[in-house]
Amino acid sequence: MFRQKIIDYDKSIDEAKIVVIGGGTGLSTILRGLKVFTNNITAIVTVADDGGGSGVLRHDLGMLPPGDIRNCILALADTEPVMEELLQYRFKEGILKNQSFGNLFLAAMDGISENFMEAVKKMSYVLAVKGKVLPVSLDKITLKAKLKNGQIVSGESNIPKAVIDSRSGIDSVFIEPKNAKALYEAVIAIREADIVILGPGSLYTSIIPNILVNEISDELYKTKAVKVYISNIMTQRGETDGYNVSEHINAILNHAGKDIIDYVIVNTGTIDKGLEKRYLEEESLIVNFCEKAINNLNIKIIKGDFVKVKDEHVRHDADKLSSVIMKNFISID
Amino acid sequence: MFRQKIIDYDKSIDEAKIVVIGGGTGLSTILRGLKVFTNNITAIVTVADDGGGSGVLRHDLGMLPPGDIRNCILALADTEPVMEELLQYRFKEGILKNQSFGNLFLAAMDGISENFMEAVKKMSYVLAVKGKVLPVSLDKITLKAKLKNGQIVSGESNIPKAVIDSRSGIDSVFIEPKNAKALYEAVIAIREADIVILGPGSLYTSIIPNILVNEISDELYKTKAVKVYISNIMTQRGETDGYNVSEHINAILNHAGKDIIDYVIVNTGTIDKGLEKRYLEEESLIVNFCEKAINNLNIKIIKGDFVKVKDEHVRHDADKLSSVIMKNFISID
Repeated sequence: MFRQKIIDYDKSIDEAKIVVIGGGTGLSTILRGLKVFTNNITAIVTVADDGGGSGVLRHDLGMLPPGDIRNCILALADTEPVMEELLQYRFKEGILKNQSFGNLFLAAMDGISENFMEAVKKMSYVLAVKGKVLPVSLDKITLKAKLKNGQIVSGESNIPKAVIDSRSGIDSVFIEPKNAKALYEAVIAIREADIVILGPGSLYTSIIPNILVNEISDELYKTKAVKVYISNIMTQRGETDGYNVSEHINAILNHAGKDIIDYVIVNTGTIDKGLEKRYLEEESLIVNFCEKAINNLNIKIIKGDFVKVKDEHVRHDADKLSSVIMKNFISID
Repeated sequence: MFRQKIIDYDKSIDEAKIVVIGGGTGLSTILRGLKVFTNNITAIVTVADDGGGSGVLRHDLGMLPPGDIRNCILALADTEPVMEELLQYRFKEGILKNQSFGNLFLAAMDGISENFMEAVKKMSYVLAVKGKVLPVSLDKITLKAKLKNGQIVSGESNIPKAVIDSRSGIDSVFIEPKNAKALYEAVIAIREADIVILGPGSLYTSIIPNILVNEISDELYKTKAVKVYISNIMTQRGETDGYNVSEHINAILNHAGKDIIDYVIVNTGTIDKGLEKRYLEEESLIVNFCEKAINNLNIKIIKGDFVKVKDEHVRHDADKLSSVIMKNFISID
């Protein structure tokens, strides 16, 4: 197994600076795992979401989408259980049906703040967040996809459906404005990091939108941090149909235009036949990997069984994942 | 001046049990004043409101109206300034325009709770409320008014406009269901209280709706507590046009059907001519009082200048008011 310990034996785990980049459920999963080991975590979160409750607030109030940020804040919060339950609550009827109360919390905080970053900071403060949650940019970013048939799809939430309807995969994604400015604190966090973790999460709609902010990919290339990509366990319909691990990696590298991955953490675990069949019905498969293809990219592989099944959904096991990260890169064993 | 000290010299102020009954801004004003002296406060709050943001949530989610409760919780809360600012925030645009975030907080809490009372308790807990806030009833109460011309008006928020439009004052108000059940904890609080304070607040829409819950007026009659009514400083258009203090008192006594007031606190302060003129334009006057008429009701009078002008609005001075209450009924002087 490859090992690159980034802190000395006489340093504490807490001194290692960890940056995690992504969005969606995947990012909050890894944050919940890592926070057991250290408070020195910075989450850099995509702001390209325009669907669901976030999309409603984005259009209704002209704010940045709160959902991914809210999930990360809750993942790192140290608050009353009742407060956490409240922030995860979704209204069940009326005009707020399906809206998350946590999104409204951030929306109201945005209303009493100078800008979205100040709102995120204040929310982090009142919920006693360990670490930092940073939107990748304060610009209003629209994610667009060019499909393999040449079609352009506008808006993150429209991409999977367009892929499914047209039966044409994603050729590439891009953001508008193209020159969206990275949050300065996010750039600095990457610069000063000891480890930068990409993923897990939706490849084109959670991971890559961050990298499309130029200063982010530039800084990922320049930083002395160890850069680790955590590959997804399952393919995602309308996004990564049929992709293996190296195809995930290639998509990231092609969009970055630079080598920004040193290691990949791949799953070797399996799921039971019943669940596999259910996923197959939704056209989602276990992500396979070919060691040789990954080695050819000059990326080192860390393998493990990271499967955790919760409510019939395959997720990464946050404990195993963060233990592997700690064992390989930080703590003495 | 009449004096009725209810605790002995060797007891602390905190041992006196204070119950305040009402709704609206008036109730939260007096709570902010009293909490400086004691944590032993129970606020019993009307649930007849059906206007504004509370009305929207009442109709949209089928919950009890949160606004008055939210104001009382905030008045007694011991939380971060940023959290208080957040809870008072009203959305400025979109589908939530003018809705208070604090109302949504209570609405979400209602969603994760067995009933409204549990939601109020949980919200009080996370905001570190000193004392207790209790809805007068968990029943869905509709306030109706019979005008002097015989017209029946349904819904608290419709009453003032109907009075103004018809130029016919309020004859009486009543609630439906007529046999609405009082919250047991509210009944017990009154039973065990040392002082019960009614008001200040809108006579027919904040004070009397509480008394119309039969067990509340029964218990107010039976309790050994000293019962103090705080009269309003200004008349309210569409509600108490032209009323003096004894007319306020008579309305309360007639609706209770029993003697439930021992003392009345009346204002002797004045307001400057400019402000008086502005209020006159809105057909609101200083509430006058005739000592003889009040004495005839066998109610003792406590006088003082309680006027505080804030943002061009006449309010009770919470500090002076609570000092007078403490001085007359509780603390040694």
